[in-house]
Amino acid sequence: MADEDTYPGWTAVSDLVALRDRMRLFTSERDWSGFHDPKSVLLALVGEVGELAELFQWLPAADAAKIGQAEPLHTRAGEEMSDVLLYLVLLADVLDIDLAAAANAKLTQAARRYPAPSAPSGLPTAPRQPG
Amino acid sequence: MADEDTYPGWTAVSDLVALRDRMRLFTSERDWSGFHDPKSVLLALVGEVGELAELFQWLPAADAAKIGQAEPLHTRAGEEMSDVLLYLVLLADVLDIDLAAAANAKLTQAARRYPAPSAPSGLPTAPRQPG
Amino acid sequence: MADEDTYPGWTAVSDLVALRDRMRLFTSERDWSGFHDPKSVLLALVGEVGELAELFQWLPAADAAKIGQAEPLHTRAGEEMSDVLLYLVLLADVLDIDLAAAANAKLTQAARRYPAPSAPSGLPTAPRQPG
Amino acid sequence: MADEDTYPGWTAVSDLVALRDRMRLFTSERDWSGFHDPKSVLLALVGEVGELAELFQWLPAADAAKIGQAEPLHTRAGEEMSDVLLYLVLLADVLDIDLAAAANAKLTQAARRYPAPSAPSGLPTAPRQPG
Repeated sequence: MADEDTYPGWTAVSDLVALRDRMRLFTSERDWSGFHDPKSVLLALVGEVGELAELFQWLPAADAAKIGQAEPLHTRAGEEMSDVLLYLVLLADVLDIDLAAAANAKLTQAARRYPAPSAPSGLPTAPRQPG
Repeated sequence: MADEDTYPGWTAVSDLVALRDRMRLFTSERDWSGFHDPKSVLLALVGEVGELAELFQWLPAADAAKIGQAEPLHTRAGEEMSDVLLYLVLLADVLDIDLAAAANAKLTQAARRYPAPSAPSGLPTAPRQPG
Repeated sequence: MADEDTYPGWTAVSDLVALRDRMRLFTSERDWSGFHDPKSVLLALVGEVGELAELFQWLPAADAAKIGQAEPLHTRAGEEMSDVLLYLVLLADVLDIDLAAAANAKLTQAARRYPAPSAPSGLPTAPRQPG
Repeated sequence: MADEDTYPGWTAVSDLVALRDRMRLFTSERDWSGFHDPKSVLLALVGEVGELAELFQWLPAADAAKIGQAEPLHTRAGEEMSDVLLYLVLLADVLDIDLAAAANAKLTQAARRYPAPSAPSGLPTAPRQPG
């Protein structure tokens, strides 16, 4: 089986680890780690969720996807969702949580809890991860 | 360079793309896509942020990281953060947003907005992405 | 004019002040005031907003009001909204904010910011408060 | 006992009803009621909670109350809390919920659920309401 030991030069693709590493560098270069207790990061995340909500609050529900796929909302939504993601990645780092592993486990759990009657081949399986 | 064409059977996928694909499959197998307008997904994300907040609300701020790194909170926090992440990934998919690209762009922007006086080598750069 | 000095034994209290006073008593009887720093109360409020969001997240937007006016959602929504209100009242007390006065001032401000073209008689005015 | 029937000219003191009535007038003068489905109002409330969270997110937990009682944070916090309250009052109106009654009932419920061991006189009771 292909794995990173077998194929030198290959790098496991993890956006979440890459973002975590950038956040770590960003934080340490600014000496901001003292601010990053869990409750503070959580409130920062709540702030960004609020900004995201403001973008969509008064849109007609049925048209929101279409409007959100067009500019200028598309870029704005991407920015606010990025902020939410970055604080989530930061919080996971502060708590020493492997976010990708946790999310895959949660999806497997959800698939068991809500069985798909029509699924031809049982539970959804995660695309094979390298390593 | 190693790439997916070279090693048949192997597909390099980033973890955010992998989660998106699992969410797509999960949704389509249950025929739930009709529920996934942006405002509904946003409210679901708010619900999960609320559950995450409840885990930390009464902890002393100074001890919250240590307590959150230990069980049982570590697993619980990972589950709620996963739910937040999965709804964020779903919302990005509904809006046709490349979350990893958007988050990297946002971090580059943040690094310009808040220059790091002591940074020896300028802006943090994203780890090289394969593919 | 009737006022509280005229009728001994009778104390006119606004409902927000009454809720504040009940929260104070509730807190002091349980010796919980040590938990009520603003960031903790804010996270508790976020938790309750999350529970409220969960009640409505998957409802069709157009039917949500009708469904929410009927049981069992009506009672459940009232409970979660009460929790949000109570934490808001508690936070105001911790910060020494007169919530009724602040909200009336904010509404007056909003009325100036968004003039009503058709308003026959200018800004809405608050009903006269007794006392 | 004093009640409003006994003392003509006396007006029951309800800040929440007064705010509801101002919100109704504000909404109708601008012809905005079409926007006020529950999910939209909920997202607006989330947006305001986010703005409130942003005011406190990086403050040291132990000093947040003191800082929040001083300007300029005191006024800013009052404004954001007012916005949260006004959307809560609006949502209650849309759902035909008596927020004061619901909150008092919820507090009575909470007092039963978390008995106060040291309470000399049992459950906290609401200050007597006129009417």
